[in-house]
Amino acid sequence: MNLAAEVSPLPLGVFDSGIGGLTVVKALREVLPNEDIFYLGDTARVPYGGKSADTVRRYSLELGDILMQEKAKVVLVACNTASSVAIPNLREHLPLPVIGVIEPGARAALSATKKRHVGVIGTRATIRSGAYEKALHALDRNVRVMSRACPLLVPLIEEGLLNDEVTEQIIARYLAPMIDEGIDTLVLGCTHYPLLAPAISQAVDDQVHLVDSASNCARAVQELLHERGFQNSSNQPGKLRVALTDTADNFLAIARDALQLELGEIEVRALA
Amino acid sequence: MNLAAEVSPLPLGVFDSGIGGLTVVKALREVLPNEDIFYLGDTARVPYGGKSADTVRRYSLELGDILMQEKAKVVLVACNTASSVAIPNLREHLPLPVIGVIEPGARAALSATKKRHVGVIGTRATIRSGAYEKALHALDRNVRVMSRACPLLVPLIEEGLLNDEVTEQIIARYLAPMIDEGIDTLVLGCTHYPLLAPAISQAVDDQVHLVDSASNCARAVQELLHERGFQNSSNQPGKLRVALTDTADNFLAIARDALQLELGEIEVRALA
Repeated sequence: MNLAAEVSPLPLGVFDSGIGGLTVVKALREVLPNEDIFYLGDTARVPYGGKSADTVRRYSLELGDILMQEKAKVVLVACNTASSVAIPNLREHLPLPVIGVIEPGARAALSATKKRHVGVIGTRATIRSGAYEKALHALDRNVRVMSRACPLLVPLIEEGLLNDEVTEQIIARYLAPMIDEGIDTLVLGCTHYPLLAPAISQAVDDQVHLVDSASNCARAVQELLHERGFQNSSNQPGKLRVALTDTADNFLAIARDALQLELGEIEVRALA
Repeated sequence: MNLAAEVSPLPLGVFDSGIGGLTVVKALREVLPNEDIFYLGDTARVPYGGKSADTVRRYSLELGDILMQEKAKVVLVACNTASSVAIPNLREHLPLPVIGVIEPGARAALSATKKRHVGVIGTRATIRSGAYEKALHALDRNVRVMSRACPLLVPLIEEGLLNDEVTEQIIARYLAPMIDEGIDTLVLGCTHYPLLAPAISQAVDDQVHLVDSASNCARAVQELLHERGFQNSSNQPGKLRVALTDTADNFLAIARDALQLELGEIEVRALA
């Protein structure tokens, strides 16, 4: 009798401030199709991008605790804002490997840049934290980094204006100074932004390489599972469970359509 | 000895999901210059406009409790989203008069409309609640109401784009169907929107009257204080205390400049 077959495999635990982190789930599905995933989105308090580091840390620890109760084998912080301010606290607090989106994104940016000149866009809190600059400079102290908060992009994405002249104008306005300065690589430092990758590609010169934190983070998880022998040995397609702290708004439908993810029934878990 | 002079007067308690409700404070200052005001903005969980009615109710009750602890003599819900779903719950829960922004706005709209054809704009949650339609129809069952959620306006305001071609385009797009249908009165059903009143005025025909929930709500408070004899008898200018559940983001500076309010030091009160 094969006992392993009867025991549910432990899931990857993923949390985000809301629904944007589903871009990371999509990327995980591609590189780790057999892993179960438990996704937790804090839609009751979304967005995190304008909030203080202290508040984002407090929220992140609460979400980490829920993932631990769900027996996650790894905690994946699929939110750039939380990754930029709460990773050390989560690592101290949780007896589990914790992976954020910043360092994988920084590594990928350094692999891509030829002129060692990287642009970073993200929420106000992510940019204010300087987390990408720190991660990039820790790996290469001579890289030039130019960053910019783009607080309108998330609302435009959540409104479904993925292909719209207003979105194009706003993108052009945010990116113009970086393009003028000659970046050759741009980090999409917010999990929503991959949904705008086509519009952003159009706005930047062909020479600017886009680094998507979702797919790089998924590869970091793959490496970690491999190193620690934590992979799910099953050949079955992994299951996805999605829990939100408030009922989903219309952005869920937009994300589901754009990502073509099969989400199943959404659980609602009110926080205490 | 005049005891009354030595006792601090009880403040008006005002709460909002964040900083937008300061437009109501500004309006209160104009009609009730001698009243003390305690303003509580839930910046740790802002915005409410995309959240579920249940979650907004839960948050509103927590904020109402804090205002009661602050000895507010009246609770003013300076947030259309909270007013649209939580007023009955607050009235049941609090032993204080509770005034929201919806009913005063509906009354003002009915006074203004000649064609009995009113437009309402607000957040997704406010529009979904149908609160303005209900309030308008309760007062005049034959009024025609057309409403529309405008979720990009708050982020545009918070980004400081009060006078910007992108904002103008978005406003034109949101309002076009209402203008085509022939509304003659438009309710600005979100406390942020008065900051866009000049841009909205430009977008609508001269014949469309704008109803600003902030100033109508302030007049409702004035009437209530008068009816109940709750006015502060002092001739001193009223004091304003502002508390937020998270440190303020840059929108505070935008609102302060646009409203020319003297805010003093901001208290931060983390919620449990």
